[in-house]
Amino acid sequence: MKKIRFAIAQFNPTVGDFAGNAERILEWVRQAEAQGADLVVFPELAISGYPVWDLANQEDFVAEGLRHLHKIVRATARWRVTVVLGFIDKAKPPSERSRNGQIWISRGKILGRHYKRLLPTYDVFLEDIFFQPGSTCRVIPWNGWRVGPTICEDIWDERYDEKPLKDLRAQRANLIVNISASPFYSGIDAGREALVRGHTKRYRFPMLYVNQVGAQDDLIFDGRSFFADAGGKILFRAPAFQEGLFCYDWNPGGANAAAPALEAPSRRIEEIYQALVLGVRDYCRKNGFDKALIGLSGGIDSALVAAIAADALGPERVLGIAMPGPYSSKGSWEDARDLAERLGLEFHIHPIREAYEALLQIYRSQRVSERKSGTDASEITLAMENLQARLRGLHLMYLSNDERRLLLSTGNKSELAMGYCTLYGDMAGGLSVLGDVLKTDVYRLARYRNGLKEVIPAATLEKPPSAELRPDQRDGDSLPPYEVLDEILRLYIEENQSRGAILRRLGKRRVLPEVVRDTLHKVDHNEYKRRQSAPILRVTQKAWFGRRMPITNRFR
Amino acid sequence: MKKIRFAIAQFNPTVGDFAGNAERILEWVRQAEAQGADLVVFPELAISGYPVWDLANQEDFVAEGLRHLHKIVRATARWRVTVVLGFIDKAKPPSERSRNGQIWISRGKILGRHYKRLLPTYDVFLEDIFFQPGSTCRVIPWNGWRVGPTICEDIWDERYDEKPLKDLRAQRANLIVNISASPFYSGIDAGREALVRGHTKRYRFPMLYVNQVGAQDDLIFDGRSFFADAGGKILFRAPAFQEGLFCYDWNPGGANAAAPALEAPSRRIEEIYQALVLGVRDYCRKNGFDKALIGLSGGIDSALVAAIAADALGPERVLGIAMPGPYSSKGSWEDARDLAERLGLEFHIHPIREAYEALLQIYRSQRVSERKSGTDASEITLAMENLQARLRGLHLMYLSNDERRLLLSTGNKSELAMGYCTLYGDMAGGLSVLGDVLKTDVYRLARYRNGLKEVIPAATLEKPPSAELRPDQRDGDSLPPYEVLDEILRLYIEENQSRGAILRRLGKRRVLPEVVRDTLHKVDHNEYKRRQSAPILRVTQKAWFGRRMPITNRFR
Repeated sequence: MKKIRFAIAQFNPTVGDFAGNAERILEWVRQAEAQGADLVVFPELAISGYPVWDLANQEDFVAEGLRHLHKIVRATARWRVTVVLGFIDKAKPPSERSRNGQIWISRGKILGRHYKRLLPTYDVFLEDIFFQPGSTCRVIPWNGWRVGPTICEDIWDERYDEKPLKDLRAQRANLIVNISASPFYSGIDAGREALVRGHTKRYRFPMLYVNQVGAQDDLIFDGRSFFADAGGKILFRAPAFQEGLFCYDWNPGGANAAAPALEAPSRRIEEIYQALVLGVRDYCRKNGFDKALIGLSGGIDSALVAAIAADALGPERVLGIAMPGPYSSKGSWEDARDLAERLGLEFHIHPIREAYEALLQIYRSQRVSERKSGTDASEITLAMENLQARLRGLHLMYLSNDERRLLLSTGNKSELAMGYCTLYGDMAGGLSVLGDVLKTDVYRLARYRNGLKEVIPAATLEKPPSAELRPDQRDGDSLPPYEVLDEILRLYIEENQSRGAILRRLGKRRVLPEVVRDTLHKVDHNEYKRRQSAPILRVTQKAWFGRRMPITNRFR
Repeated sequence: MKKIRFAIAQFNPTVGDFAGNAERILEWVRQAEAQGADLVVFPELAISGYPVWDLANQEDFVAEGLRHLHKIVRATARWRVTVVLGFIDKAKPPSERSRNGQIWISRGKILGRHYKRLLPTYDVFLEDIFFQPGSTCRVIPWNGWRVGPTICEDIWDERYDEKPLKDLRAQRANLIVNISASPFYSGIDAGREALVRGHTKRYRFPMLYVNQVGAQDDLIFDGRSFFADAGGKILFRAPAFQEGLFCYDWNPGGANAAAPALEAPSRRIEEIYQALVLGVRDYCRKNGFDKALIGLSGGIDSALVAAIAADALGPERVLGIAMPGPYSSKGSWEDARDLAERLGLEFHIHPIREAYEALLQIYRSQRVSERKSGTDASEITLAMENLQARLRGLHLMYLSNDERRLLLSTGNKSELAMGYCTLYGDMAGGLSVLGDVLKTDVYRLARYRNGLKEVIPAATLEKPPSAELRPDQRDGDSLPPYEVLDEILRLYIEENQSRGAILRRLGKRRVLPEVVRDTLHKVDHNEYKRRQSAPILRVTQKAWFGRRMPITNRFR
């Protein structure tokens, strides 16, 4: 059998940018042709971008996508290379839902089509709402091969009665092509490869897996396309988090060298860091922000976000603002300045003390609240703590509006879980960078980044975490130690464990039953804050985005 | 055939309050028994409340519900009346999802169970994510009847291949019981009755339809349970938006009077008003707020919200704050005071001018932004407009925190659609009351409320709408006239119409193509603001909550 040169189009589309996506698709096809590729394969919904949610059923949106698809089909008449694309096809009555399609194009002609059969509807996926499933899989004859076309979930068949790959095997498919838009979470790469290796060994066919790369709102796509032979051996891997057209020559008759082994576990923190950089970069780029803004507290969270933003956008596009308040330590703005200097950010110090005192005085003179504030001048109430955080939010949003800079919010998953954050205060911003990163991982990420170059000051890494909204405040006054807290949160949120199971897993030596109870209570109670959060970049298997909880909930 | 006395338990549960729900269920069963009822029927998931989202698969949550179910089963040993309840049953392996069940209980024994087969997964429903569907329907023999048990969507079978009612007909069912938690939108009652009348005529069986009442976060349940005979005649209707145990005596052999006809169309505005009152009342009650707080601008939106809140909670529990700014007209706070007096609210005036000027001065002295503000002292920038709105948000949140009052946000659907609102400013709050009400309906609701008693000042109704964030500002400067705008928005959002279809529907005499284009563009662009909105009470068939759009979207 003849050698095949695959051109793996690990493509980063922008949702709705049909003209831009189509133009780049054609450019890549031209390059694939120039490189002598036999087949160039783009990811799921490459023309529209993925996910598009309800846009999938807007008539104009679908029509515009089809118009560009037909333009691409016509353009391929002049090339030899076969093109595989993901696209949205209009609904086939009586269904009212569009279809998630794959199309094979050669020399201006359509060789075949496939419609996604298994539509993931769980966690961050709601495809059954938007798409009508395809009912069959049909082998597409191509250059002497019997190709089995599949789209993403079609191969994640464990939870379904339908088994598209089995149907394709029955039709004597001898090469499977899967086009995906499979979002990243920490650990997914090993899961994907295990899945595909299992299938290829079971059914004895090779599989080309082509995944989208890039970020779309909360979701980050990691790419990492690969090719597995019929024995389950991974012969080729495209890089993670990197767009590009990657060629691989496969010799179906002869010997093919295996790709180097995955080094997943040791890379957990590195890959989360890279994912977050891509998430920030693409949110800015795709939404037309060329500059970002971060409130720098001198603490670890904002320091890490600043490093990520500097890596994503270039330090010259990132502005850091330290806003020391009445209870901020001197170290806090010194550490912030130190960080900004090491990263090369523009940096200013704008104390909030004057504004805080002016507002408090106005509130007192207006007798704004009769209840607490104003009665005992030495007391610092919750309202007063929040006022400090909200004055910073006000300040940053003023700057964001005035300079059209994206405000990045810096709260971590542990804080969001516990409600240890202020609505419209530190939660303000257009994108939450660390909202799916537990505090203990924030430290790991900071140390990882410092391992490349020491940008986060030692003082920031070493001092005990504090919101500094009252004298001598420490996170530890209100929260369990982060090592314990994060383990509880991970079990509760990511593994959906019960209170009893969490207690058993941690053991009574490490945690008191009241601490677990109180922690779960706080997570549930603070749903109302998270409901108003900016989109949160997802890096775990169960981020807030895919976890749907009521606000009104008396269960404790 | 013997007469049946139905006790229709139009029940308002609180999600997760198992002890409270179970106690009230038992009290209602006792009352039904005392009233000589043969059958008392509670709505879908009465024990846990509905919807529970991911809680449905928390082990502790399911176990606690089952514990209370068994307590109820045991307690019924001493009564004659048969009890029908909705409950969550645990997963049946290999499935990992719980089941949405209906149970029939008589004298401490279980007569039968049914598991919901059709799981709505569209719009505001995502049940397929949380529940494993039942595979069959089996008739439950009861007092000589062959009862067909169904749960909510089981009878909304048009979009499904499975037809539970047809299966029950094949089993010679002669009485259908449907327990529902069917959320309100304007017009749903007529739709429900048409559906049930169609089924009862087609299959020749009578149907008892028992719906939940009360609000849960964004969703409002309207009750309006009813009984239809085998000829499609509605014999009994329970009231809308009202909790209660309603008895109805049905004579299967003899003549039964029809219930009075529905008067739906003329009641559209009245029922939306009642729905919003219930929505505010239940959000407060179920989340432990006994007091609310509203920023009163003197405009129509905040006036209507104040009236709704006063009706929901009692005027003595509602605090209105007028916060005139540098560009507020004198009329604005006078109208606010007039409204507060008419409603009997506690009311204060806290001008923001001093705080605004103090902050602007600080920002200028700190050279907070180099770009716009501070260069031309007479220019009012977007950042400065937003600063005014955000100072009001800051002020209200300070009060909300200090007095533990729920801040109600007052923006309407037209504003949210167009982004004519400020994040962390007028959008601040725990619940958005009018976020699903178009501006033209805001006026209709205000006039409806004034028809009961004139509480909203004529000046508020008559003056042209303005945000008053710069001199002589009018909504009409930035937005099309509301009559045109709302029609575009309704067609785009609620009917999912394309740009061309909207233009055709409105006609070129009423609207320019550029206006439609610009409007749709703004709706799409402002998704990022809505993503951070408080929960929005849903009163239309397509509220923001059930509409899923990406933020990143270049399609225009």
